[in-house]
Amino acid sequence: MNYKMISYVLGCVLNIEAAAMVLPFLCAVLYDESAKWVFLLCAALCMVVGVPLVLARPKNKTMFAKEGFVAVALSWITMSIFGALPFVVSGCIPSFVDAIFETASGFTTTGASILNDVEALPKSLLFWRSFTHWIGGMGVLVFLVALLPLSGGDNFHLIKAESPGYSVGKLVPRVSSTAKILYGIYIVFTCLEVLLLKIGGLDWFESLTLSFGTAGTGGFGIVNSGIADYSSYVQVVITVFMTIFGIDFSFYYLILMRRIKSAFKLEEVWVYLGIVVTSVAVIFFNTRHLFEGAFETLKHSAFQVSSIITTTGYSTTDFDLWPQLSKTILVVLMFCGACAGSTGGGIKVSRILILFKSIIKEIKVLAHPKSTIKVKMNGRILEHETVRGVNMFFMAYMFIFTGVLIAISIDNLDFTTNFTAVVATLSNIGPGLSQVGPVCNFSLFSDFSKVILTVAMVIGRLEIFPILVLFSKNTWKR
Amino acid sequence: MNYKMISYVLGCVLNIEAAAMVLPFLCAVLYDESAKWVFLLCAALCMVVGVPLVLARPKNKTMFAKEGFVAVALSWITMSIFGALPFVVSGCIPSFVDAIFETASGFTTTGASILNDVEALPKSLLFWRSFTHWIGGMGVLVFLVALLPLSGGDNFHLIKAESPGYSVGKLVPRVSSTAKILYGIYIVFTCLEVLLLKIGGLDWFESLTLSFGTAGTGGFGIVNSGIADYSSYVQVVITVFMTIFGIDFSFYYLILMRRIKSAFKLEEVWVYLGIVVTSVAVIFFNTRHLFEGAFETLKHSAFQVSSIITTTGYSTTDFDLWPQLSKTILVVLMFCGACAGSTGGGIKVSRILILFKSIIKEIKVLAHPKSTIKVKMNGRILEHETVRGVNMFFMAYMFIFTGVLIAISIDNLDFTTNFTAVVATLSNIGPGLSQVGPVCNFSLFSDFSKVILTVAMVIGRLEIFPILVLFSKNTWKR
Repeated sequence: MNYKMISYVLGCVLNIEAAAMVLPFLCAVLYDESAKWVFLLCAALCMVVGVPLVLARPKNKTMFAKEGFVAVALSWITMSIFGALPFVVSGCIPSFVDAIFETASGFTTTGASILNDVEALPKSLLFWRSFTHWIGGMGVLVFLVALLPLSGGDNFHLIKAESPGYSVGKLVPRVSSTAKILYGIYIVFTCLEVLLLKIGGLDWFESLTLSFGTAGTGGFGIVNSGIADYSSYVQVVITVFMTIFGIDFSFYYLILMRRIKSAFKLEEVWVYLGIVVTSVAVIFFNTRHLFEGAFETLKHSAFQVSSIITTTGYSTTDFDLWPQLSKTILVVLMFCGACAGSTGGGIKVSRILILFKSIIKEIKVLAHPKSTIKVKMNGRILEHETVRGVNMFFMAYMFIFTGVLIAISIDNLDFTTNFTAVVATLSNIGPGLSQVGPVCNFSLFSDFSKVILTVAMVIGRLEIFPILVLFSKNTWKR
Repeated sequence: MNYKMISYVLGCVLNIEAAAMVLPFLCAVLYDESAKWVFLLCAALCMVVGVPLVLARPKNKTMFAKEGFVAVALSWITMSIFGALPFVVSGCIPSFVDAIFETASGFTTTGASILNDVEALPKSLLFWRSFTHWIGGMGVLVFLVALLPLSGGDNFHLIKAESPGYSVGKLVPRVSSTAKILYGIYIVFTCLEVLLLKIGGLDWFESLTLSFGTAGTGGFGIVNSGIADYSSYVQVVITVFMTIFGIDFSFYYLILMRRIKSAFKLEEVWVYLGIVVTSVAVIFFNTRHLFEGAFETLKHSAFQVSSIITTTGYSTTDFDLWPQLSKTILVVLMFCGACAGSTGGGIKVSRILILFKSIIKEIKVLAHPKSTIKVKMNGRILEHETVRGVNMFFMAYMFIFTGVLIAISIDNLDFTTNFTAVVATLSNIGPGLSQVGPVCNFSLFSDFSKVILTVAMVIGRLEIFPILVLFSKNTWKR
């Protein structure tokens, strides 16, 4: 294990975090909040640890798969701990467990909060809270890879461990160029949303924070009512952008390169949009008695569906009061998640699609044992390893889901609360149903459960295996 | 497709069903109930259809895999429809949907009931209801294979489709001998339980019906209070026998053959017993404030755990009132189920074990991509096909679970009720939580949902694929 290289990566991540704190610092300066000293202090703390680690730059820069996993896993844990400092130092979230929950929820783009009153927070801290979504959405290591002059093979392991969707790294041969393209698309869409929200009458602070939450598919709001009290225009803009950020970024890249045909051949995108349309249609008919007129019903149905499937977690209405059919569809969408290669979480549509196709194949093979049928995706035969990887991800997801569900049930909350709290954290959504519904928060859990759920968020964001690798004896063997 | 052979098998099954109705008929004669004419009439109806089908015996007896699946799937559907006749004809369950639900619940050894008052039923109908558990537990086709002079390869497809646990057919080379051995063990244990219950003070009727429910891991009671009002002796006997019937029957066969070493090498059995002991221990400490003294707590913990993991579904107490930790453990056990090769349902311990080992392997391979690690079970390397089959079963289970969950949520019952109702039927358990808890029943669902849940019970009992094969276009292609 190349420990020096791992600590070098950790150092880089801490310095990036320090740099990221400049923005909320400027926000504090702008609104003349006392929190400006908080951000200066916390940025300094990040650098006190980060700079020496970077200075001790190793000669041997080789990173194998396991170093990639370990570096990414430790980076995310470190980021969450140091990112929690502004909340603790400012006194806004005195409990360290709560502060780490909130920060991990931010970076992992979950958006689950332990705050009962977000409006009590200074604007600079709200800005930091939302900004963590934007940083975590595309990934810190992807950002690092876009900047660092590492050799191709080495940073590939980093980007692969942070965004392990099977389409990653296919855009262009050079990994750092891929990372740059991804961040480019990310920034353009974010700016577009900020502008459209600004045009809709929001101020720059609102436009920026809400766009951060949308782009990262995070879901932290800046008022207690979430998105409910904004105009229909704002709600529609956010609906559209949530859906956009849930699509595989390769789709946009291919369109940019004028490879329209290839872009429209991406099956996952169509299935994703198909699921969105179908879910909206069913929920529309199931909830039409709750709203005044078809437009209102459609607006709320579309907003909630796109918020949940993209694992954003914003809400314009308390969907916990909806009929059970609509709620069940939302819970299923929580597991499903958005496209691989997007900023969304969950199991991902492509995985569900591959699993579904494998079952269809299995049924055909059972009826005709001698037939040779291959599972295809986007017109190409899927390799055995890809299918196995998807299977293993799904299994691991279910095992971890079960473990976390049992662990937090010690708090003796009801089954629906526990069940949806686990999927809301593991799939990085935010709200669930019942006592963790869209108008509630996670403050009712014990510290023990909060720690468990924090771990679940990080496991979910890194798509499970980097964290599991961390706990394997094999990883640390020479 | 050899249609004639399939209809021949269906005819045999109907004739066996007619023969099976002789027992409740005798019961009706013994207690001088008017239902004796009901059973004579229904047996006659079975034979009116069954005998001509058997007489049109085909010359070509070849059965391939798909014929096996189709024959088994159609047999179970036919059995459930004809088995429902006594309830409808006697007027005890006037609705045909309800009667089929109850009968399918019997044959699939689910034990979920739509009856609010089982004590209102004549004894002969209670006998038939419990007897369906015993028939369905080991399987009708297994019984058929034990009797019929079919050639080896042909009936193997039948027994494989009805009890697809991966250990089936390994006992002895001849399939019909295997079937005889399985039924032999089944009968011996059932008789032993009947005797022990008789010794405990129950009458023959009680001893027989309760033993049928235990042996088949069914769970239909004959009084409204389930097993709660019986003596501790009876409750302990049932606990022990439920646990026994949840173990792979190969274990008993190996012991019988004095291959003690091989028997004790069966990993699944140890893991199964380990899960039972751990669950009992946790629930014991979690519920000790609810009962008077350690013995009572242990008795109820052990009874409920062994009832749920073996998918029997008997209960001695309303576990829906237990703390959430205990309830969550029970829900997890509902998914888990008993050993493959037992009469229990669910995903099965061996599958869970294989999935768990595959994940461990995947983590090791991720950390060391060049290493070659194989998944082993009982000291032998598992074939790729076995692991793939287990994966596909798990996926299919989850997809069907999700579909059924969405479908029945139309009734607008709460999430916990729907969720546990689906696992209780798909894993063939019986009771769930909340409104389908141990002191409740399934009568509150709409006819639509009852039909869906009936299908789920049959899908679960046949371990999914036989029913799915039925709906594949490929199966019916020439």
